[in-house]
Amino acid sequence: MSKQGPSVGDEVLCCSPVVREPLDAEQAGTLARVFKAIGEPVRLRLLSLIASHAGGEACVCDLTGAFELSGPTISHHLKVLREAGVIEGERRGTWIYYRVRPDTLRLLSDSLAPALDVAETA
Amino acid sequence: MSKQGPSVGDEVLCCSPVVREPLDAEQAGTLARVFKAIGEPVRLRLLSLIASHAGGEACVCDLTGAFELSGPTISHHLKVLREAGVIEGERRGTWIYYRVRPDTLRLLSDSLAPALDVAETA
Repeated sequence: MSKQGPSVGDEVLCCSPVVREPLDAEQAGTLARVFKAIGEPVRLRLLSLIASHAGGEACVCDLTGAFELSGPTISHHLKVLREAGVIEGERRGTWIYYRVRPDTLRLLSDSLAPALDVAETA
Repeated sequence: MSKQGPSVGDEVLCCSPVVREPLDAEQAGTLARVFKAIGEPVRLRLLSLIASHAGGEACVCDLTGAFELSGPTISHHLKVLREAGVIEGERRGTWIYYRVRPDTLRLLSDSLAPALDVAETA
């Protein structure tokens, strides 16, 4: 299940320092897709719930109680997060267990961070 | 023009460690709004262009050449970024000069980063 570096579908996410040099259209498209996936309140809460859950993983059965949403709706949001490379799932028995992909989160975090020094001293 | 800490409109963005503990609905809504704003390729490129521009600021006149988009479309995207608290603008003479808000970028970056250690050692 593990891949070489963060990826979204077939596209490899490269370490784009958003604030250091201009992103090209392709980099921006790939990175924007991931930000868009987490740019939705329910998905951001799901990400947060999964990441902070005991053992760093959670199944849908652990997640539905936090929302007044149907199981299929929760599953749809999990699919969007999974397709964006933010979480990954593994079936064990009846349930799929989800965990965050730290490589993707680190890349997103780093893509916004390094330019800060530039911006703050400009 | 400077405010106390990152904010989106009237809402103050608080330092939510997305991955350390579950976000509540209000925190998720506020943070998701900012991620959604940068989750669009043109806006991400605008952010990147502004941040990496000489002196850390740029006017619309510096930005339109990079896109095959009309001035009003560029201005619309800049407005979305500004309303999300990601950039700020200051009118000087004919032009409004935009620069990134490092406080907001740092908050976004930090909100994804701290949980990484948790996730990676889980």
